[in-house]
Amino acid sequence: MSSTAGQVIRCKAAVAWEAGKPLVIEEVEVAPPQANEVRLKILFTALCHTDIYFWEAKGQTPLFPRIYGHEAGGIVESVGPGVTAFQPGDHVLPVFTGECRECRHCKSEESNLCDLLRINTDRGVMLTDGKPRFSIKGKPIYHFLGGSTFSEYTVCHVGTVAKINPAAPLDKVCILSCGMSTGLGATLNVAKPKKGQTVAVFGLGAVGLAAAEGARLSGASRIIGVDLNPKRFNGAKNFGVTDFVNPKDYDKPVQQVIVEMTDGGVDRSVECSGNPQAMISAFECVHDGWGVAVIVGIPGKDAEFKTHPMKFLHERTLKGTFFGNYKPLTDLPGVVEKYMNKELEVEKFITHSVPFSEINKSFDYMLNGEGLRCIIRMEG
Amino acid sequence: MSSTAGQVIRCKAAVAWEAGKPLVIEEVEVAPPQANEVRLKILFTALCHTDIYFWEAKGQTPLFPRIYGHEAGGIVESVGPGVTAFQPGDHVLPVFTGECRECRHCKSEESNLCDLLRINTDRGVMLTDGKPRFSIKGKPIYHFLGGSTFSEYTVCHVGTVAKINPAAPLDKVCILSCGMSTGLGATLNVAKPKKGQTVAVFGLGAVGLAAAEGARLSGASRIIGVDLNPKRFNGAKNFGVTDFVNPKDYDKPVQQVIVEMTDGGVDRSVECSGNPQAMISAFECVHDGWGVAVIVGIPGKDAEFKTHPMKFLHERTLKGTFFGNYKPLTDLPGVVEKYMNKELEVEKFITHSVPFSEINKSFDYMLNGEGLRCIIRMEG
Repeated sequence: MSSTAGQVIRCKAAVAWEAGKPLVIEEVEVAPPQANEVRLKILFTALCHTDIYFWEAKGQTPLFPRIYGHEAGGIVESVGPGVTAFQPGDHVLPVFTGECRECRHCKSEESNLCDLLRINTDRGVMLTDGKPRFSIKGKPIYHFLGGSTFSEYTVCHVGTVAKINPAAPLDKVCILSCGMSTGLGATLNVAKPKKGQTVAVFGLGAVGLAAAEGARLSGASRIIGVDLNPKRFNGAKNFGVTDFVNPKDYDKPVQQVIVEMTDGGVDRSVECSGNPQAMISAFECVHDGWGVAVIVGIPGKDAEFKTHPMKFLHERTLKGTFFGNYKPLTDLPGVVEKYMNKELEVEKFITHSVPFSEINKSFDYMLNGEGLRCIIRMEG
Repeated sequence: MSSTAGQVIRCKAAVAWEAGKPLVIEEVEVAPPQANEVRLKILFTALCHTDIYFWEAKGQTPLFPRIYGHEAGGIVESVGPGVTAFQPGDHVLPVFTGECRECRHCKSEESNLCDLLRINTDRGVMLTDGKPRFSIKGKPIYHFLGGSTFSEYTVCHVGTVAKINPAAPLDKVCILSCGMSTGLGATLNVAKPKKGQTVAVFGLGAVGLAAAEGARLSGASRIIGVDLNPKRFNGAKNFGVTDFVNPKDYDKPVQQVIVEMTDGGVDRSVECSGNPQAMISAFECVHDGWGVAVIVGIPGKDAEFKTHPMKFLHERTLKGTFFGNYKPLTDLPGVVEKYMNKELEVEKFITHSVPFSEINKSFDYMLNGEGLRCIIRMEG
């Protein structure tokens, strides 16, 4: 039992007071975990586009002050009353979506869209009592995605925390808790290319490159990267991408370009940009008879997917996925093992690292499109 | 060796001289089969919507005079030079699409869209020499879908003829050569409902009812039939359909009705009407997390499938299928065996029967929406 168990912890957290304004490192109080909760000491965290999106709060319901961050690795500091699945000292990855293990989705082999703990971007409080665990001098500070990992300590629902191999280096595997698993799982669990098949990946950000990593692990013979930004092509070679297509370089639709360069279409495609036109292209560029296209990128509210239904009747499949179809508690430990077994390459996704005091730099890197993942070291 | 082998056969055929005009029973000459061809004695045939569609020739390239018919059962009369896969006397089902066993599609486990012998509605001649085998006093009469089974004898490419168990009654299993296998395979091979799951079927014609039969064979707990024609509901009960929804009875979209009656959506849906709005409904009525929708019905040239991409991201799948994903030569014998083993009920699809001389009656039945399948008995 740690000496802090059951006590309020005072620690540093990076608080977003207003939309789009730099985070401010503040001393916050973190209340002890309640039933079905654990308190975590965060050691490493990383910035993901979803943090940026809600911090900018353009078109989203703004909720401030809030502590962002959801891609992270840490250690259990203490557990709430009645919690037996975790012990202080457990190494864990907090996840932005959860697994209650009791609902129809959790009981289905196919779904990871838990009824109770499915991602909820609007909720800024704990499920147990509808209150946040963070405060500054009594003023509540809201949670984000059940994580709020831009804090030295945070409180999470037990259903959103994956216990992992304690030998795994948290400064590396922390990035498996969100974007990287999303892209990797989209290929490995949903597109499922066979050895020797061809795969197109639309959008070569971290999620798209993780999808390419999944294609590499599957033994794809050819991985075609599609992006509007040619600066991404050179780096993508490290991720097994063999061919590059910039839709801006052609007068014809990019799906036609890909169909022509692959003698009828790719076997699999994975769309990671969220652009509705890219979704249509990703679907229409797969081969008839067996082609499977998978949508990963989040589209805007008014987006529309349109195609001629004959494209389906020629035996093409279109699927969507959420978090790479991984069940967060059940499956993430296995993804970490893939890294431990040296199958999965994680280091190449980590392009920057900053101490917690310089967390705003990681926002600058992402806003400027520099690099893929910036690790934020909580202990400096 | 039959005494007719190598000879022109004179026999009766129902010739369509003009679009939409009653067929005329004529004496035709049927030339002997050439390389890669067999000549069949047709014993039983049935009328399918596709015959009607091309006979009406509304919006299609008209090709007359032509012998329609492609759903049939017969016996090999003779084989062309070098043909070893068939012997005179073999019991067979001619099929409207084929299997060369050599192209990428035939070699793929997933596809049945053979490059060489895939359905071609415009071709009225044999592949071998680009000529028809039918004539009347030297005037060529065109083939249809590689079958032209509205004739006592016809010539087919060996890649479009399935050899079946000679004990199977051809007056029953003839209807497995097209529509019934299309619907059945859409459920069994593509939608693949698990025992106890719910299935919605859009369009309760013969193909839709065969899809329902597939759901019944899969052990579906609930089969929801959707049709604009309430007259079809009563008969559909014999096909395991448990619930009926007529979109005309509701102000809200039918997908919403189905989602509400199934606590979140059906597990699988199969669209057999060809109506683009029904395709959208069939997709949007499946459950998030695991729902699979399958499109079977052929849409019009200008049809469009539209939906919000978030419907996919909530882990729904949309697939299309052609001929129920059955490889015609490889898989049809097994479908026949399902009937022989009393798993599959075929008789309930056969609602009428006429002698060949009254073939035009079968057109009337279909045009009036009476019954499902009318068997045409070539020998009276």
